[in-house]
Amino acid sequence: MGRQPVTYIPIGIIHSGHRLRDKTPIQPIFAQEFCGRAEIHAEFADGLRDIEAFSHIYLVFHIHQADPARLIVKPFLQDKEHGVFATRAPCRPNPIGLSIVELIKREGNALHFRGCDILDGTPLLDIKPYTKRFDCVATTHNGWHDQVDEKTARQRGKRADQGEAP
Amino acid sequence: MGRQPVTYIPIGIIHSGHRLRDKTPIQPIFAQEFCGRAEIHAEFADGLRDIEAFSHIYLVFHIHQADPARLIVKPFLQDKEHGVFATRAPCRPNPIGLSIVELIKREGNALHFRGCDILDGTPLLDIKPYTKRFDCVATTHNGWHDQVDEKTARQRGKRADQGEAP
Repeated sequence: MGRQPVTYIPIGIIHSGHRLRDKTPIQPIFAQEFCGRAEIHAEFADGLRDIEAFSHIYLVFHIHQADPARLIVKPFLQDKEHGVFATRAPCRPNPIGLSIVELIKREGNALHFRGCDILDGTPLLDIKPYTKRFDCVATTHNGWHDQVDEKTARQRGKRADQGEAP
Repeated sequence: MGRQPVTYIPIGIIHSGHRLRDKTPIQPIFAQEFCGRAEIHAEFADGLRDIEAFSHIYLVFHIHQADPARLIVKPFLQDKEHGVFATRAPCRPNPIGLSIVELIKREGNALHFRGCDILDGTPLLDIKPYTKRFDCVATTHNGWHDQVDEKTARQRGKRADQGEAP
């Protein structure tokens, strides 16, 4: 029970300046200087009505360049091993990405957004509005994240200094 | 381009007391009195290491009882039509559910959580830690949500008074 595969058809595609996986910031908060464009396929575009009134949205996407799944990983921000479900590492059994981005504007079937941590060409599966009412929750424990200071997090999370300068 | 289907295999199953779709609260904040249990299949259980140190997690699941997709919908909280991507309505092209729940405890391969808005038997696709660092974002505009006062939202969101008393 609970093993039947599920199949989804992308509703669109993400366009961005990120072409190299290992130089792409790992989360939108480390990618505020990067913008992206979500292009929704014409047959789904009616679903965008009224989305412009939200300042932030969730993009739910297929991490198409994820490495094969591993259950124990070292997250980007720390050199200690954890279960993959205790991290946002891409190499997970179902490589579903989740990014909270700031909506800049809608232009026809395209949504321009800020805080792009997504590779160019990524298949988009869903868009959900991000609301204060449902989505901003006061945490008491942030797991291993509480051991990583802000400066270290930012340096490692931006990944700008991996190899050559961008 | 960007239309290749993607297939995922559930990593587990959600158990809860919610058996009737139309009497289930629509979001965790309206479901704080309901607990649930995410049972992770044995072959993925190693991925849970260190998850107990997070107070909150995202559950990403397949909304297996969703109605066929519609692009224009009336959300649960308001009697006005919007594009489905501007709502959290289940009847979306790819019925992927996203709930932020409070982790109570881990018991072997099971995670007990509070704030359960998920039907019993729902296939689980992914678990991600919810962190203050990445996931709690200050919004400036909350779309049509800004037109719905808290009292109305709570009454409509709990759905406890749909038909018979629970």
